[in-house]
Amino acid sequence: MNENSRIIAVPGGTGNLGFALAWRWARAGHRVIIGSRTAARAQQAAAEINERTGSNTVTGSENAPAAAEAEIIVLTVPYAAHEMTLQTIMPALSGQILVDTTVPLQPPKVNVVQLPDSGCVAVQTAKLVGDRARVVAAFHNVAAILLNSDNDIDCDILVTSDDPDARQTVMQLSEDAGCHALNAGALANAVASEALTSLLIHMNKTYKAGHAGIRITGV
Amino acid sequence: MNENSRIIAVPGGTGNLGFALAWRWARAGHRVIIGSRTAARAQQAAAEINERTGSNTVTGSENAPAAAEAEIIVLTVPYAAHEMTLQTIMPALSGQILVDTTVPLQPPKVNVVQLPDSGCVAVQTAKLVGDRARVVAAFHNVAAILLNSDNDIDCDILVTSDDPDARQTVMQLSEDAGCHALNAGALANAVASEALTSLLIHMNKTYKAGHAGIRITGV
Repeated sequence: MNENSRIIAVPGGTGNLGFALAWRWARAGHRVIIGSRTAARAQQAAAEINERTGSNTVTGSENAPAAAEAEIIVLTVPYAAHEMTLQTIMPALSGQILVDTTVPLQPPKVNVVQLPDSGCVAVQTAKLVGDRARVVAAFHNVAAILLNSDNDIDCDILVTSDDPDARQTVMQLSEDAGCHALNAGALANAVASEALTSLLIHMNKTYKAGHAGIRITGV
Repeated sequence: MNENSRIIAVPGGTGNLGFALAWRWARAGHRVIIGSRTAARAQQAAAEINERTGSNTVTGSENAPAAAEAEIIVLTVPYAAHEMTLQTIMPALSGQILVDTTVPLQPPKVNVVQLPDSGCVAVQTAKLVGDRARVVAAFHNVAAILLNSDNDIDCDILVTSDDPDARQTVMQLSEDAGCHALNAGALANAVASEALTSLLIHMNKTYKAGHAGIRITGV
């Protein structure tokens, strides 16, 4: 445990992105709680991470109790499960930082941007949770396969929020996960990261690349 | 003149972005027609570019005749003038490639994404012009001040279109302007580039940078 250790819940942590982030944060000395719809699946993912890190700090539980116990909640569920998961954890919210990583992909055309009519997903999240959580958006554009390896992460994490302190905390979490973070401004700016992922998927196919990402130049 | 010389009209070419692109294309051997609401202003900008390149290939005229004469029309007007300029050049459209560079900035909060209710500007352009032009979107995220210098351009140009041939032509034009181009997919994907500019403006201020841009990694 490092002295800045945080308690981080990862609803959706049995999926690729959440699992990889959970592993990186556990490795950095944070206490991680994997969340899932079923406790057993969450506990299995936690056990895999513990085996990989050689420790026993990661636990697993259903999404709501995981969120209740955490200082920071990182939502990593597919878009189709986004609203339902938010409703599930809503009673567990009491001022935590809620990191929304959701990209509004609408299969099968995941290589074409199809923003919901309501616009930015993260802004919708903030409207839904009101003052129950401090919403930050991040990690939309980093390939889970990269995060789940020991490779250096050759891209930037665009971190947006209307709460500067919460944004700063998540930028630090990003660095703890080995990812260079950038302050990308207001929460409404998350729509750019939410949209960009379809372009990266398109370019992965067009250029036969495995994990396109973005980097900001000139800063 | 190079053997692949094109006739390119630049409505809005008296502004920073259009002027800089026009200069780079003139330098690369293309024939450029600066467009403006008044012919005199267009001709003045053309004369400045001719003096800079030491040639006389750049001309200037009102927007509609400039568009009528061109194979490729590159719209570089502010968002507030976007629809009006499109209406002005509409009678001059007869199948040309129309490159939309428009970023929907809404002053004074230009560092926060404020997409129009209709969503993607380039998609709106395509709806408006119908089959009168082949719409491509590009050049949203490159700093005009960089383009207007001899500096290397340290960012990528995301080029989107539903017309693969037109997209390829504009990717080549981007390279001719000294900018690395990427095929970023369908025209609807332009919403990502349209949104990104506000993040770059925010980061220019936050990180005291002059010209933030984006680069795609891993491709």
